[in-house]
Parts: sequence; C-alpha cells; structure tokens
Amino acid sequence: MSEQVLGYLKENREQLLTKLNDFLAIPSVSTDSVHKNDVKEAASFLEKYINDIGFDHVEQQDTGGHPVVYAEYNQAGPDAPTVLFYGHYDVQPVDPLDLWESDPFQPEVRDGRLYARGSSDDKGQVFMHLAVFEAYMQTEGKLPLNVKVCIEGEEEIGSENLYKVLQEKQDQFQADFAVISDSGMIAQNQPTILYGLKGFTGIEINVTGPDHDLHSGMYGGAIRNPLMALSHIIVSMKNEDEVITVDGFYDGVEPLTEEERKLIADVEGEDYKASAGVKETASEKGYTAKEHTMARPTFEVNGMYGGYQGEGTKTIIPSTATAKITCRLVPGQDPERIQERLEEHVHKVAPAGVTVDVKKEKLSAKAYKVEPNHPLIKSAAKSYTKAFGKETVYVRMGGSIPVVEWIEAIYNMPIVLLGFGTPDDRLHSPNESFPLDSFDKGMETLVYYWKEVTQS
Amino acid sequence: MSEQVLGYLKENREQLLTKLNDFLAIPSVSTDSVHKNDVKEAASFLEKYINDIGFDHVEQQDTGGHPVVYAEYNQAGPDAPTVLFYGHYDVQPVDPLDLWESDPFQPEVRDGRLYARGSSDDKGQVFMHLAVFEAYMQTEGKLPLNVKVCIEGEEEIGSENLYKVLQEKQDQFQADFAVISDSGMIAQNQPTILYGLKGFTGIEINVTGPDHDLHSGMYGGAIRNPLMALSHIIVSMKNEDEVITVDGFYDGVEPLTEEERKLIADVEGEDYKASAGVKETASEKGYTAKEHTMARPTFEVNGMYGGYQGEGTKTIIPSTATAKITCRLVPGQDPERIQERLEEHVHKVAPAGVTVDVKKEKLSAKAYKVEPNHPLIKSAAKSYTKAFGKETVYVRMGGSIPVVEWIEAIYNMPIVLLGFGTPDDRLHSPNESFPLDSFDKGMETLVYYWKEVTQS
Repeated sequence: MSEQVLGYLKENREQLLTKLNDFLAIPSVSTDSVHKNDVKEAASFLEKYINDIGFDHVEQQDTGGHPVVYAEYNQAGPDAPTVLFYGHYDVQPVDPLDLWESDPFQPEVRDGRLYARGSSDDKGQVFMHLAVFEAYMQTEGKLPLNVKVCIEGEEEIGSENLYKVLQEKQDQFQADFAVISDSGMIAQNQPTILYGLKGFTGIEINVTGPDHDLHSGMYGGAIRNPLMALSHIIVSMKNEDEVITVDGFYDGVEPLTEEERKLIADVEGEDYKASAGVKETASEKGYTAKEHTMARPTFEVNGMYGGYQGEGTKTIIPSTATAKITCRLVPGQDPERIQERLEEHVHKVAPAGVTVDVKKEKLSAKAYKVEPNHPLIKSAAKSYTKAFGKETVYVRMGGSIPVVEWIEAIYNMPIVLLGFGTPDDRLHSPNESFPLDSFDKGMETLVYYWKEVTQS
Repeated sequence: MSEQVLGYLKENREQLLTKLNDFLAIPSVSTDSVHKNDVKEAASFLEKYINDIGFDHVEQQDTGGHPVVYAEYNQAGPDAPTVLFYGHYDVQPVDPLDLWESDPFQPEVRDGRLYARGSSDDKGQVFMHLAVFEAYMQTEGKLPLNVKVCIEGEEEIGSENLYKVLQEKQDQFQADFAVISDSGMIAQNQPTILYGLKGFTGIEINVTGPDHDLHSGMYGGAIRNPLMALSHIIVSMKNEDEVITVDGFYDGVEPLTEEERKLIADVEGEDYKASAGVKETASEKGYTAKEHTMARPTFEVNGMYGGYQGEGTKTIIPSTATAKITCRLVPGQDPERIQERLEEHVHKVAPAGVTVDVKKEKLSAKAYKVEPNHPLIKSAAKSYTKAFGKETVYVRMGGSIPVVEWIEAIYNMPIVLLGFGTPDDRLHSPNESFPLDSFDKGMETLVYYWKEVTQS
C-alpha cells in the first residue's frame, strides 16, 4: 500500500535531490544581517514548495525577526488526527570558511554524503518531510492525516520570536501531536528513538574587587583577588567527584531505575575518549559517563575570564572576574528553582572583600521525557525498523531543544522526535554533511510512519 | 657651602624647567616601534646635555634594542668615591589618550604639578640628577665625586638588553655604590628611604582537556572541564586566609622581627580601602595588610581565561584554560626554587582527565634589602630631612625593580634608592604628573647627598 509512494520517491530521486540542492544553496544564515534577504528567500522557497505540494493554506508569518513558514492541510477530514510538524530553515554561520573542502552553499556529493551547510541541520531533514508529503499527494492524491507546518528561521539564534508566536497563536498551532526532525541517531543506520532531552538553565557570575586593576606590588597582600575569589566560588559548586555541591540542586531528580540503566548500558554510545581526544573520562561518582551525559544533571563552566590575557606577564590584581555557567537538567528539576539555588549558593560562599553579582539566563527550559511505551513512539520504532532493517534503540540525550519544552508546556501534546542525522554530520562545523542513505531510509521511515499513526 | 649650588638651581629654575619640558615632549615610548626614532632622539638629548655639563666621556651604547646612554666623570680624582647613577628615558604608552586632560607630550603645569608622560617615571627624576650635576659644574667647577651614568631606554619593556650589557661590561659599570631615582615617597613631602623591595617570579598554567570545544549536551558529564580543573588547581595554592599552601613556598623566609613590625606600623601607609575602592582588605592570617604588602611574599592570579567570553551563552566544555600567576618574594626566597615548587604543586594536584603544562617566567628577580643603618643610607636620610624639613621614614615595598637585583647580584655594591615620586603621580596611567615642589626639594636633597657621601 505504501509501494506507490515509495516508488514515486525512488523514480523522482534525482529531481528531489536537485531541488534539495537549490534549497541548500540559499545561504540562510540567521545570525548575520548580511544574509537577511537570503533567509527570506529560503522562507519563500518553502512557501512555494508547500503550495505546489497542494496544502490548503501557506503563509509567511511576520515575527519581528525572520518569518515563520506556516501551512495547513485539512483534507484528511475531521476524523483523522492532526500533526504539527516543526523544523527550521535557518543555518549556522560557516566560519572558518577555509576549513571547508567544498563551498558550503554549493552542495556536493562525496563518498555517499551530501556536503553543504544545513544538509543535516535542519534543511535536509525539513526537505525530507516535504518530499514525502509530495509523494503522497502525487500518488494517493491526499495525505493520511491533517498537517500543520511550522518551519522557523531563528532556531540557530535562540527561537525567541517563535516562543512569542507559539504563545500568541495557540488556536492555530494546536494539534494532536507534534513531530520534530532536528536530531540524530546514535550511529548511522541505527534507528533511534530519542525519548528524553535535558532541560537547560544558566547563570553568569560577576565578581568585582577593586574599582580598577591594581599594581600587584603596591596592593598584593592587602586586596582580595577577584579571580581567586571566583575560583573559590566555582570549586565550591562541583567537587572532584563531579558531584554538584549546591544545596538542593538534586532535589526532585527522578532516580535512575535499574531498567533505565540497562537501557542506557545497551546503547552503543559515543566513544567519548576518542571523539573528545582525552585519556580519561570524568563522571559523577556512582554513574557511568553514558549515564551521566544521558540522564543525570550536569554543571559546566562554559567560559571564565578576568585580568590580563596577552603575551607574557602583567603584574596586576584584576578588578573583575566572570564565569559563565550552564546546567543541563533532568525531569523533576525546575530551571527557575535551580537558578535560585545557584544564586543563593554563590552569595553564601563569596569571600569577604569582593562583591558578587549573579545574572540569570533568560531562556531556560525544563527537561523533556516521553513514555517509551506511548503508541506514537511505538509506531515510530516500528517504522524506523521497517525502513532501516534493524531494531530501534531508545535513548535519552544530554542535549536540550528548547522548542520541545515550549510545545509541551504551551500545548500539552505528545512530541515525537524523528531524527535522521548521524554522529559524523559535523553540525555547526565546517564540512557539514548528511548521508544520502539516511535521506532515502529516512523518507521511507516517514512514509511508513504517517500510515502507522493513522491506522493505530 | 652648598648655597652657591642651590642658588644656581633657583636662579635658573625657568630655563631648567623649559629644558625638562623639551625632554618630556619627546614621545619616547619604548614598546611601540612607531616611536623608535623618538626613543633615539631622547637618548641623543641626554647625550648632548651630559656632554654640555662637562662629563669626560659620553656615548650611546648599542644594545640590539634602544641604546643605553653611558657617561663618565672622573675629575674628582682617585680618592673620591665613584657612584653609578641608573635611570631610564623611555616611557609607558599613553592609551587611552582621550582620558588625558592635556596632551601627554605637551607638558603643562596645573595646581603646582607638571603634567606629562614621564614627568615622574622616570624622565623627570633623571633630569633632576643632571640639573644638579650642571649646577655643581657651573658653580664649583667640579662634581664632589666620580660619576658613571647609565640611562637605559627599555625599562618599560623589561630591560632585557640592559641585563646583557650589565653582564658584558662589568669593568665599565663597576662603582662603589649605585643610586637609583625611579621610585617614590609614601606621601608628598614625606622623605622616605626604601630599604627593601620584593623579588619577583611567575608561572603560566595551561590546562588542556578535550582537543576541541565540546557541546555540553553531548559531552557534559563525561569529560573533565578544564576551567573547573584549573579552578581546583588555583584554589589549592592559596586558601581563604590568604596563606599560600604550596609546599615549601615559605622556606627560608626571614621572619618579621618585632622591630620591623613596629617600623611598618609607624609608616603612614596607603589607605588601601579608599584607593582600591573595596570595603574590606584581605591579608595573610596573622599579618596586617601593610605587613603583607611590604614584607611578606604574595601570590596573585594576574589573568585567567578559557572558553566563551561573548554576549549571552555558549554551551561548551572548553578545550583549554589558562592562568597567569606571579609571586612577589622576600629575602630568603629563591625565584627559581619557587618556580619549581609551584610547578611540582600544579602537577601534584591536577585532576585526572586533563593535561597540565607549566611555563616559567624568564625574568625573575630576588628580593632586595639594605641595612637601614648603612652609612650611605644614613646620609640619604639626613639629606632628605634637611631638604624637606621632616623626619625620614624607612619602608620596604611590595614592588620589584629587577635592575636593582641585577646590579646587586652582578656588582655586589650597595644600592641607594632615592625616590621623589608621590602616590598621586599616576604612573603608567593617563594624566601622569609630578609636583614641582618635589622637583625643587628633590634636587636640593641631591645637592646635599653628594656632599654628605663624600664627607662621611
């Protein structure tokens, strides 16, 4: 019954890839105002394509920033479920350009991979969905379910405007469930259900000592050094066992069940040592590296600075010191509560002689977790396995996708993460690519999935 | 007997100040190659002036960098002592220029102070010596003692070439004692004998974790964070009581005697809180802030950095982290030994999962201390008091003047630091200035001093 649809994709593979290349050739770098018109062009490309496919309605929504491409297909009728499909058409900058082996905006196939900025994150994956919709329309004359499309142009710069849109247009975006393809599989050809993502929050600590940099000969021994004070604060927050020592930080954290530990142990995880280039991993006492990254909260100093950074020596006591800290959270942790705990801790341990200010990161998100047994998830696993010919594995990941938490919080609907990227895609780096094999099997998965969810 | 000399200085004050202004107007910024010819011009100014005064010999010595102005006056005869006078004619850069109230190279008098880059450090003080020599020659027809002059052009960039010259030309520079006027008094009009300076050494700690910045969602919980590791190392080196906890750091440190503590307590010290803009001072447990800055070794983190420093948030585990550390040393401490102790300590406490590299600062110096009862020092105190009309105080200072240690180490001769600067001179900062009152009284002090040392 899906044969016709799959046949269409096979017969039209060349044309579809050419069309994808046209899409990838548009340098829709959202962070760079030089590319403002390119971002707009990518939105218009999508608007035209979705219109050509035969959706009932398609529009570019003004957000104050780059537009959201919104579309509706209602012809499956009131009894069919409605899915909200989310993706993004903006891409990361390409610097450093000289590390690219081919032009990031002139897609090129090498060794079975399509090299271009956005090929995996996320234009390639967005295009796969649209191609599958096209195939359904061209063969069966309709889609198996009603569809709402939301493709934004600001994911790589924080999605702040999308957050407003999602809050303001609740009637428009409401659906029975949501599907997002902006993630990956744990290995190429290893179907992967991502059933948990971490939440996210952060603070910036600013320590101020003297009101200007001081000569260390004139003042050394009389004045508290802000870098030293900041180091004391930082060290008091996580110990050498990688246990976070901030009072209340672990409150409410769901304990890891034996079942989940087994699920994690069974996953063929990243070879952390090889890919990070370190001799030893370092994880929370009592947990493996995989358990910690996938399912335990983390605390990282992302940046720290103060004083002299040039060549040689400058004998000063610096006036200020700064640390940027983010935490990845698990279910049971509330980002705002965590920020408060961190702030309280910092003020409690700050040594005398300096003043300390804590800035709270505005864009926080709770963790996301869906029941691995949910029917929508089971259908996804079944479709993956059918397309890739391999058992699907279930993983939680250490990363955060804020839009996932927003959709869950605002719309209270289940979210299915259907990712087709691979660990070698080099997202955000030079030489981003996507395997053509994942392109084919990913589309096949989607063809099965839309049938599965409408039949179950 | 000194009346004639003092009279000459008084009568010719206008001409001397005009000449000083010509000297200050030359932008002899040694660190900036744009000013290479200006630095040379300042050397030539000195060469001509010293020649005009009537020295036997004057030359510009090639150092590979900016020249050393070397001169000899031998007419006092074989029975008179010989002094080596050291100073420098190069100045600090003037940035930020817009904070200057008048052009740094167009000297201007406001409220009894001469504003110009180098007015205090050290062109003004060098000029005072030459003016006094001129006054002696013009009135008495000779100087009271034999003089060797060494005025370098690279003090503000580390004096590396001077160090070579001092080592290579030992016969030339040898004298009975040395006089340096490149320091200050603890308050304007408060005659001050600086009888101790700290030594100096440093290390740079480089911590490397992963071989590239990592995504904190993918790797957080598996990889040791280099900034965290560096903070642990730093905190292990000095505790919150400001006690340095590096094994062997205090070995050999001369204990502070009750007599010295009294000497320090009697000194009207810097108001650290007011001038640094802090609410509380922080000093080594068991010592006052004055005792710690003046006479106890110190350990300061001068700079520290790693990871993201931009606006907002970047969720990475940084690849590297760096700390720049310098220590001020007291008599009994050997800089190289201290560097070894610091290095051993860093390697001992470095946590697993990172590699640590320690770079040792090349230009170190031992501390300097002279007996407050030395006849050359007593003569200085007497001359100061006579000129300023106030008892001379004896202080040790937290700063280091490497050339002092070199002259002591290479030539084994006593060194007298005759400083005339004041705490408000703003050395190395915008609006550097020097009180005209110190100019007059300082020259008066020198007139007395040369007589004193030849009579005692």
